[in-house]
Amino acid sequence: MPAIDLNCDLGESFGRYTLGLDNEIIPLISSANVACGYHASDPVVMRQTVKTAKEAGIGIGAHPGFPDLMGFGRRNMAVSPDESYAYTMYQLGALDAFLKAEGTKMQHVKPHGAFYNMAAKDYAMAEAVCCAIRDFDSSLIVLALSGGELLRAAKDLGLAAAAEYFTDRAYEADGSLRNRRLPGAMITDEGEAIARTIRMIREHKVRTYDGQDITLDAASICVHGDGVKALEFVRTIRARLEEEGIGIKPLRELF
Amino acid sequence: MPAIDLNCDLGESFGRYTLGLDNEIIPLISSANVACGYHASDPVVMRQTVKTAKEAGIGIGAHPGFPDLMGFGRRNMAVSPDESYAYTMYQLGALDAFLKAEGTKMQHVKPHGAFYNMAAKDYAMAEAVCCAIRDFDSSLIVLALSGGELLRAAKDLGLAAAAEYFTDRAYEADGSLRNRRLPGAMITDEGEAIARTIRMIREHKVRTYDGQDITLDAASICVHGDGVKALEFVRTIRARLEEEGIGIKPLRELF
Amino acid sequence: MPAIDLNCDLGESFGRYTLGLDNEIIPLISSANVACGYHASDPVVMRQTVKTAKEAGIGIGAHPGFPDLMGFGRRNMAVSPDESYAYTMYQLGALDAFLKAEGTKMQHVKPHGAFYNMAAKDYAMAEAVCCAIRDFDSSLIVLALSGGELLRAAKDLGLAAAAEYFTDRAYEADGSLRNRRLPGAMITDEGEAIARTIRMIREHKVRTYDGQDITLDAASICVHGDGVKALEFVRTIRARLEEEGIGIKPLRELF
Amino acid sequence: MPAIDLNCDLGESFGRYTLGLDNEIIPLISSANVACGYHASDPVVMRQTVKTAKEAGIGIGAHPGFPDLMGFGRRNMAVSPDESYAYTMYQLGALDAFLKAEGTKMQHVKPHGAFYNMAAKDYAMAEAVCCAIRDFDSSLIVLALSGGELLRAAKDLGLAAAAEYFTDRAYEADGSLRNRRLPGAMITDEGEAIARTIRMIREHKVRTYDGQDITLDAASICVHGDGVKALEFVRTIRARLEEEGIGIKPLRELF
Repeated sequence: MPAIDLNCDLGESFGRYTLGLDNEIIPLISSANVACGYHASDPVVMRQTVKTAKEAGIGIGAHPGFPDLMGFGRRNMAVSPDESYAYTMYQLGALDAFLKAEGTKMQHVKPHGAFYNMAAKDYAMAEAVCCAIRDFDSSLIVLALSGGELLRAAKDLGLAAAAEYFTDRAYEADGSLRNRRLPGAMITDEGEAIARTIRMIREHKVRTYDGQDITLDAASICVHGDGVKALEFVRTIRARLEEEGIGIKPLRELF
Repeated sequence: MPAIDLNCDLGESFGRYTLGLDNEIIPLISSANVACGYHASDPVVMRQTVKTAKEAGIGIGAHPGFPDLMGFGRRNMAVSPDESYAYTMYQLGALDAFLKAEGTKMQHVKPHGAFYNMAAKDYAMAEAVCCAIRDFDSSLIVLALSGGELLRAAKDLGLAAAAEYFTDRAYEADGSLRNRRLPGAMITDEGEAIARTIRMIREHKVRTYDGQDITLDAASICVHGDGVKALEFVRTIRARLEEEGIGIKPLRELF
Repeated sequence: MPAIDLNCDLGESFGRYTLGLDNEIIPLISSANVACGYHASDPVVMRQTVKTAKEAGIGIGAHPGFPDLMGFGRRNMAVSPDESYAYTMYQLGALDAFLKAEGTKMQHVKPHGAFYNMAAKDYAMAEAVCCAIRDFDSSLIVLALSGGELLRAAKDLGLAAAAEYFTDRAYEADGSLRNRRLPGAMITDEGEAIARTIRMIREHKVRTYDGQDITLDAASICVHGDGVKALEFVRTIRARLEEEGIGIKPLRELF
Repeated sequence: MPAIDLNCDLGESFGRYTLGLDNEIIPLISSANVACGYHASDPVVMRQTVKTAKEAGIGIGAHPGFPDLMGFGRRNMAVSPDESYAYTMYQLGALDAFLKAEGTKMQHVKPHGAFYNMAAKDYAMAEAVCCAIRDFDSSLIVLALSGGELLRAAKDLGLAAAAEYFTDRAYEADGSLRNRRLPGAMITDEGEAIARTIRMIREHKVRTYDGQDITLDAASICVHGDGVKALEFVRTIRARLEEEGIGIKPLRELF
């Protein structure tokens, strides 16, 4: 039976600030990317998030970000490879402590926001992130952009690496996402988006923006839980996947 | 042969800011309390500090503090037990990641500044800190104030617990430090300070401010490396201990 | 015609985090306490909040807090008088820059959360806060707890000072709020709460918990905009005050 | 009599961390760029720095930076024009409060580190910074890199603008600094550096890296006080300027 993972960012609240419909999205996904206190979250939120995710039985991953709470880790920063290594290590360790206390094990790592995007383009940063992951726990799965440097660095370092698929985005011939600023970057028709997703899962094929069929072997679909509409889409795609006989399983079961 | 540990705060630099004579103090001590990024330090500094301490072969401990970089963790904060648990867990994990990457093991935990002082007086906070330590790694040694609640909570939870001795402070009959605001709180004569220390190590006895002899079984002496004068004192006491045939060993070897 | 001010905290969002129903509460109040980037808010939020408040024509005040974003400034911190002075000055200046840019003038200062509560009990802290206010702009009105040290310090320093009234709280004979942990601290009946408020406005009298009538001359009522229920209460009390012929005016018009 | 300003970053200490030889450099300079709590400094340090600078009679400027204390504001960040405006406004106001309290007036604004460098290349960012300066106080002088976008934006907005001269750097034909990564970027000979500086002051001419003479009308020389060697250089150049009959005056006296 074909199967896919659904991953979603989780635990992004901070102190008095609540963000995301965590309790609503958890039953719909199979893997969570848990914020680690740099771009979002705090230790109290992290503890609660890990507990809740563990109870739900979903895969728990670290979601390390840049030290930019004010910008929610979404702003590119000229962070050096040494800093990238150290920031990743710090956040992996901090989150893992809560997993250890709950008697559970970390499944994967997916950098957040600008860290994710920069590491997808900059091999030196990507390599530093992957060195930290390897030095921390070489059994962790790296979840990254298809066709990007982070995926490549993970493989180069011998780490398990999974690409993720974006249902609402057009792809270029090299497997990268079409730049949002270009026309046709977004797949706005829900039916089309889901049909494309199912084809990618079954055939590992995606029709690119310029009309070619390329191979794309993504093990996870990135979904969102930060709004009612996003949640509704996850319910829809989940139902459709089930109708198609496609299993929804945490990353660790797909390797 | 009698033996004692010499512990010192380490790795308190932050970004562009340098603090402490780490390279000078390391050869003189047997255990380091390494800052974890809350009251001081950052991931790049933590990585370097762990490397340096490991190479020197000294015991490495976590030095978790309050989230108050501006106040260097020295200001009392009304942190709840739940927050105390989570802040301790977060910092233990973050530091431990760097130890794991270096293939070494954490020896002890000593809270920093106001966290240390508040936990010495507030059993609920002390218990929360010790629960986090136990849930993270129940083999860690808790390093705490003699006669305080943190020491008591550690013992109540079945953790290895060590009291530390302050060479320059007078003691009260209950084993606590004489309040700095009271007369006679400081032992200003170096010779007297060292003689008292040696007696404490050999006989586990301290003459209190009001003239009684009490039992004080401290396994570690707290020293400082944040100035030339402090460093000179460590050299002096270390030389005197060696003359007396007292071994200087990391905490883990004293249990 | 009797008149009263309705004050509410505003502009407490931060980066990606939204807090408070600012647009809904603004038309209902006459004065806003605007967060200044320490316990909440950031420069982008501050700029927008000042613009919105100015357009609505309400009085704009500074709401300085402790440097504790993670605790939303609600945790007591052992902040010294010198630090209290400097933190107040910094935040007053930062907020005032946005008012200056909008061509408007700051009306009042009300410390936030733990800063407010500690300054109400600690004269040295209160005096430091008021010295900063006086040194920054001696025409600012200090909005403070009735019967507290901040109100006293403001008067001692010759500043305009206004007490605020809490509609849902019982009062003690000295004009202070009855401790929340004691029975009868909260006025849970809405009708009673409003009747008491109207009496305070008309007669400057409050019936205390132990049944005495004391004089309480509060120029402002503290309301909340952080939830639908809170908002509903503001609509109710506002309507009742208008029925009673009581004007709702910003603080500056009541001096 | 020809005259020039000597400007230096000041007040970059933070909490327990000391940085810079402020007391030693102050008597040697005519203008100070005072950190505002984002990339460095805190309110207690700012208050003290403003007091000390005022007593010394030097010109006081704001030195706003990116919200990146861990990176000391030296890392490029993808800060938007709106954020640049708001961050500048916030920091200008915060610093100005301390000047107001001391009864003195801000002289200039010089962005710090990556903010300075990015604004020198990015007109949209530069314009946002200058709009904030204009909206805060249109009499402030903008101190910027020669040939850069910040200088251009300041002039476009009608602000007083001064270029600064770097004694140890080679210049390109367009008046910009030769990239540090290229050969010959640094002027390593002290005598040559000083001779070039004196020529720039007297003749407003600089010999570029490729041997042309260009016009460079810089009103200020950037010096450093963060080390003993830097300090020594300032003493030397100051003495040489005096020998040459060149006055050393704060920026405001040169306009």
